[in-house]
Amino acid sequence: MKNDIKDCPASYAISILDGKWKIPIIWFVAREKVIRFNDLRRKIDGISNIMLSKSLQELEKDHIVMRKQYNEIPPRVEYSLTETGNELYPVLELLGAWGKQAINKKIHTEIS
Amino acid sequence: MKNDIKDCPASYAISILDGKWKIPIIWFVAREKVIRFNDLRRKIDGISNIMLSKSLQELEKDHIVMRKQYNEIPPRVEYSLTETGNELYPVLELLGAWGKQAINKKIHTEIS
Repeated sequence: MKNDIKDCPASYAISILDGKWKIPIIWFVAREKVIRFNDLRRKIDGISNIMLSKSLQELEKDHIVMRKQYNEIPPRVEYSLTETGNELYPVLELLGAWGKQAINKKIHTEIS
Repeated sequence: MKNDIKDCPASYAISILDGKWKIPIIWFVAREKVIRFNDLRRKIDGISNIMLSKSLQELEKDHIVMRKQYNEIPPRVEYSLTETGNELYPVLELLGAWGKQAINKKIHTEIS
């Protein structure tokens, strides 16, 4: 099996979702349906403007999040999940459920 | 939402699965049920002994893969998925299916 990351779609998915902020961003955008930059920044403890902006740009480039700008004064910008992003969300819930179990098992094994 | 990666189990799961080799290793170990180091190395094109050994150690530390050594001459070592690893596999299949679609949409959008 030639090993370019795009030959392994699961590896590709993980590579574009990795990092401390991508999943929390997707989680809040999914929950709020439509959300503005500053509201998103307030909800994610510890994220800087630069990291939120960079992560949103990457998620947009990877077609998971879409950005809509309203030409008003002041300009209004809203973020929501794309169809691809909405299709990802239930898989992330399953991955989260697995992750919770994996964390508990690891803690349990390291205590005993 | 305080943002330690273990507070976000999906982020935790992605962080321990990231990298070019973890998913292919899990995929082959799952498919073969029980597999030896050299057989695994031959199946994954381009992986070095060092990277396979390092990745297997990390997957073992994270309780996804288990290592069994038989005290024979020469010593025999076999790898298989743990219960946690087996529970992960169907989620990776869903993530892979999503990843395939995301790659196709991205290629399609970038061509048009």
